[in-house]
Amino acid sequence: MIKVTLLGGGNLASHLAKTFLASNQIELVQIYNRTIKNIEQFKNKTLLTNNLKELKTADIYIISISDNEIANLSAKLNFPDKLVVHTSGAMPLNEIKAKANKGVFYPLQSFSKNKKVDFKNIPICIEANKPNDLVLLEKLASAITNHCYFIDTKQRETLHVAAVFVNNFVNHLYHLGNGICNSNNIPFEILQPLIKETASKITNLQPFEAQTGPAKRNDTKTINKHLEFLSKNNKEIYQLLSNSITKTYGEKL
Amino acid sequence: MIKVTLLGGGNLASHLAKTFLASNQIELVQIYNRTIKNIEQFKNKTLLTNNLKELKTADIYIISISDNEIANLSAKLNFPDKLVVHTSGAMPLNEIKAKANKGVFYPLQSFSKNKKVDFKNIPICIEANKPNDLVLLEKLASAITNHCYFIDTKQRETLHVAAVFVNNFVNHLYHLGNGICNSNNIPFEILQPLIKETASKITNLQPFEAQTGPAKRNDTKTINKHLEFLSKNNKEIYQLLSNSITKTYGEKL
Repeated sequence: MIKVTLLGGGNLASHLAKTFLASNQIELVQIYNRTIKNIEQFKNKTLLTNNLKELKTADIYIISISDNEIANLSAKLNFPDKLVVHTSGAMPLNEIKAKANKGVFYPLQSFSKNKKVDFKNIPICIEANKPNDLVLLEKLASAITNHCYFIDTKQRETLHVAAVFVNNFVNHLYHLGNGICNSNNIPFEILQPLIKETASKITNLQPFEAQTGPAKRNDTKTINKHLEFLSKNNKEIYQLLSNSITKTYGEKL
Repeated sequence: MIKVTLLGGGNLASHLAKTFLASNQIELVQIYNRTIKNIEQFKNKTLLTNNLKELKTADIYIISISDNEIANLSAKLNFPDKLVVHTSGAMPLNEIKAKANKGVFYPLQSFSKNKKVDFKNIPICIEANKPNDLVLLEKLASAITNHCYFIDTKQRETLHVAAVFVNNFVNHLYHLGNGICNSNNIPFEILQPLIKETASKITNLQPFEAQTGPAKRNDTKTINKHLEFLSKNNKEIYQLLSNSITKTYGEKL
């Protein structure tokens, strides 16, 4: 059994707590949060504390809180020979200021409060200073997911940028598409199956191969017709992305 | 039974043919294609023809060919009182030049050759000049899908632009994310679950509500760190989309 203590009361922390409690390879020793109220959903009160001095011995202390509070909280931890990790995709390993061994345990997914999470299919990216700790983190990750990756601080930074493209920017394009539909009395739901198919297509196909549409064909007649129709903001985005697509295929074909 | 004749041998035409053959509400009268070879997969040879003069009487003639050939082919059809439709999202109803009633039967999905298609969940957008024909097209659509929409030529044009945003442009962002991963030895598959979750999240949530990330928070520190890291083309796209997101929330919050 790997002994784990969780520090944090947000979405990710509570999803992790539930998953650890359900695992027979992990012993959840404690859940710490500054405000007890946020973790009261866990009925076993002996598990909960809002006092760092009450922290018991564990193998791994997982800090799952806002990025800009990791340094502060971790600096208060003093567990030489134990492992302290954070769960952030955006922060370097050295953000951990604890007197302890250091690591990262980063589940790459966006977590919503009320949506049930099955970690089995969520990639977990791990990093640690010491090989032994990497083995320990891999054991912990493998207890809850089938997808564990060794990703160092520099790679994680890159991954975060890539995630902005495929998650934040993609969602914004959904928002713009939604706006175009709304202003013409078209229910956005018509586009849902296409959106899902676009996402699932690239499971088996490289995005480069999956590309279709007027910009790939360099169909300037259609492109210009669309540009006429669009508002200033949408027009700029349409133009830049179309140029980028046309360049992509112009260079390679 | 609705009597249908298909004209075309491409992806969509052959998916439609299979679906019509499997329906007990539709009688597939004939499949026409200029080149018989492309439709030879259909073993019932009495069904196939490459001669427009051999076309028998049907209730609906569905032209499913390249956009720029619709006018030419349809001009050769002479079926007064029957209905001739095309299946294109980009073309107006008047692209049909047949001596016949006119309409559109547009399944909104991207079709790949070898992937099996279940029309049940694919939205079909219909349009016709005459109310009776609209009723007939709705009957045909309802025989193969649960999602039939009345969409006129102007709305269909709009829908096509919106589809470019949520399909073509989204896939290009996948491609750019893939490139960022590749150049840092990160397997792109790590991002697949996030990509699927991003697409499925907006089934229940407005994209406006589902938005996350540094641009929404106007987190200029992270944004600038990312910009430093990116190549010229990616940087321009990152900047424009981030500005558009920040504006979206700046105006509304």
